[in-house]
Amino acid sequence: MAHTAEILSVGTELLLGSIVNSDAQMISRELSALGINVYWHTVVGDNPGRLEQAVNAAKGRADILITTGGLGPTCDDLTKQTLARCFGLELEFDGRSMERIEDYFRRMDRPMTENNRQQAWLPRGCTVFDNDWGTAPGCAFQAEGVHVLMLPGPPSECLPMFRARAVPYLRALSEGAIVSRTLHLFGTGESMVEAQLRERMNAMTNPTLAPYAKEGEVELRITAKAATQEEAAALIAPVEADLRRQFGPLIYGADVDSLEQVVLHGLLERGLTLSCAESCTGGLTAKRITDLPGASKAFRGGVVSYTDGVKAAALGVPEALLREHGAVSAPVAAAMAEGMRRLTGSDLAVSTTGVAGPDPDDRGNPVGLVFVALAGPDGTVVKERHLGGTRARVRTTAASCALDLVRRWLEGNSLPPAEG
Amino acid sequence: MAHTAEILSVGTELLLGSIVNSDAQMISRELSALGINVYWHTVVGDNPGRLEQAVNAAKGRADILITTGGLGPTCDDLTKQTLARCFGLELEFDGRSMERIEDYFRRMDRPMTENNRQQAWLPRGCTVFDNDWGTAPGCAFQAEGVHVLMLPGPPSECLPMFRARAVPYLRALSEGAIVSRTLHLFGTGESMVEAQLRERMNAMTNPTLAPYAKEGEVELRITAKAATQEEAAALIAPVEADLRRQFGPLIYGADVDSLEQVVLHGLLERGLTLSCAESCTGGLTAKRITDLPGASKAFRGGVVSYTDGVKAAALGVPEALLREHGAVSAPVAAAMAEGMRRLTGSDLAVSTTGVAGPDPDDRGNPVGLVFVALAGPDGTVVKERHLGGTRARVRTTAASCALDLVRRWLEGNSLPPAEG
Repeated sequence: MAHTAEILSVGTELLLGSIVNSDAQMISRELSALGINVYWHTVVGDNPGRLEQAVNAAKGRADILITTGGLGPTCDDLTKQTLARCFGLELEFDGRSMERIEDYFRRMDRPMTENNRQQAWLPRGCTVFDNDWGTAPGCAFQAEGVHVLMLPGPPSECLPMFRARAVPYLRALSEGAIVSRTLHLFGTGESMVEAQLRERMNAMTNPTLAPYAKEGEVELRITAKAATQEEAAALIAPVEADLRRQFGPLIYGADVDSLEQVVLHGLLERGLTLSCAESCTGGLTAKRITDLPGASKAFRGGVVSYTDGVKAAALGVPEALLREHGAVSAPVAAAMAEGMRRLTGSDLAVSTTGVAGPDPDDRGNPVGLVFVALAGPDGTVVKERHLGGTRARVRTTAASCALDLVRRWLEGNSLPPAEG
Repeated sequence: MAHTAEILSVGTELLLGSIVNSDAQMISRELSALGINVYWHTVVGDNPGRLEQAVNAAKGRADILITTGGLGPTCDDLTKQTLARCFGLELEFDGRSMERIEDYFRRMDRPMTENNRQQAWLPRGCTVFDNDWGTAPGCAFQAEGVHVLMLPGPPSECLPMFRARAVPYLRALSEGAIVSRTLHLFGTGESMVEAQLRERMNAMTNPTLAPYAKEGEVELRITAKAATQEEAAALIAPVEADLRRQFGPLIYGADVDSLEQVVLHGLLERGLTLSCAESCTGGLTAKRITDLPGASKAFRGGVVSYTDGVKAAALGVPEALLREHGAVSAPVAAAMAEGMRRLTGSDLAVSTTGVAGPDPDDRGNPVGLVFVALAGPDGTVVKERHLGGTRARVRTTAASCALDLVRRWLEGNSLPPAEG
């Protein structure tokens, strides 16, 4: 029998619009990949009466209830108490969770306050979800025919805990196997992908195919149901092969975390080093690479050259080049990458220069005009891009263009053709 | 009497996690500013049975029901039909809306399909919300003591329609005013703040006081209700003054967007320039500053010195210093900031060096040990910090420490006004 889940998010900050409910979105995606239907999302504030009302409504229509939020140390945080009461369970002090919380504060070198102790009280007999990303443990229990899973609210804790603790718990409830595989594309829009695939997607039932837009990238998720993992995987393989034929090098990976992870992996695999010179992306490219553990094994460093002076002083970009072509130009992008490569001695160096907005630059270059360059042992290549959207979107996509240039170089181990 | 609103979002794409419910967030924010309480968000798919169930639940607990989504032209789009049925209303063909839809397609130079006609059927006697941003008109009606407002789902239509059409409609219903003010703190934890304020918070009814944790920072929101905006603001002022006495320089701003915005504003106000040298934060500090439009007026640039070689070559950190103390040390943090200031000639330069994790560095320094330094015209200051959490959290907090060092310097110091 297919399971039906409801996501119940607890937090006045959601009802005030201080934050967006990204937990519900991300959990919904993960549940969909597990083949679990989600029919309701509900949000209530830090109010035990309305939370109880929401739990009682959920009991009648879902057999998996996932709560997010309200596990914090403050007196507003009432999810555990309220859920335990709704299901007739006692809270019990969990010494092991207490030790983990104390340990967390020791590592942070911060005094633990008395109210943090409240986080170690959990419903009697529950499965504890250890929190490796913060203080509040999550938990799961079964009562009145409902599996209840409680997760912390901050996305930086909720998501990793869901993946590491809740997914294995939920997998154990499922019969048969559902396998998903996600292809990651950069360099094309969701509506373009959707238009090319619409007919095929509508005709497919098992596996299914669904596109997702994500920060200027597109994800294509193939999901198959079968008796075993192997059979489900066998259903996916020919669909993936078809998509790879169709989209070719636009696909930068399958079931990968990010473009930067693919780049870092490619560098480490080949024993190569990278550095980056950034103007319009202002450190974002370096930030994305160094988000990754182990980046220091391949990434040497970067320069954020936000003025012509820094481009000249730190990267050795000739002042004549800046005067003649302006900072936002192909020759300057090339000189930045080459200067960066000289400065750090890295095998590869990538650069970005462009107009992130909101206003055109003082030479009248339009918002979204971006040059990215890659300098390597066999020369330098520059690409011109015209990107759309907000300042944040232009910056993100420009950094992705730079990373994708490195990715394609690593795949081909030779430079891509020079034209746009 | 205060109004109570529920936001009911309709769309299977929300339950699949394909999109995040930004409509609910933005509408909540606008409602909060109108002094209208929001106690529930509900999301259902394109399913008339569950939509009806959700409407009936909302009738019993809200006197304003705002729906988003399900007004499109496809057969999945059933919000108007279902809501009309729930409130015993007929749908009526609205010729004026039809003309506007036809006109929209003419302007877009696209053929109109027959099912677009469905969008011109609206509940009899409703107030029509013209759609200047797409095709589906919204509408509002009052029935069974509930004000029902229906808005299209795409955020690019929902938000402008809410602001232009729904806000005036709702303003006419409201009595009194609610005003909120948020104090932003860095350098203390949510549980610490809560422990210090718990008694007072529990004793307060108007204004109320609520703490929120946010990316290593804490927000304290004071909310007051009164007959007018001015009276509500007058209730807030003494509470804010008290909190400022209590938390002093931990408060970096009130109703501000971010720490980096406060820093940029402070730099621009004083005509000062900044640059930054980053090791463990790997570009994140520069990225956060350059996220902001206008950053180029105060930010000169940065160096991401991810290796000792780059620290020496780009920043002039003496190799003896690196050998003797290691990269993660107070003297190296100071030398990085000073070298950065020399390189760009900025008034101030800030640096970070530390262990972001997941593993200790090769000298055995623990994850979370971070040094930040600020070099300015009157010398250099270094701070040692022990940060907790994941690699991402350590990096975010380390960048915030660097920014906060600049913020405190700007608050406490004054340079002679820039000349010429």
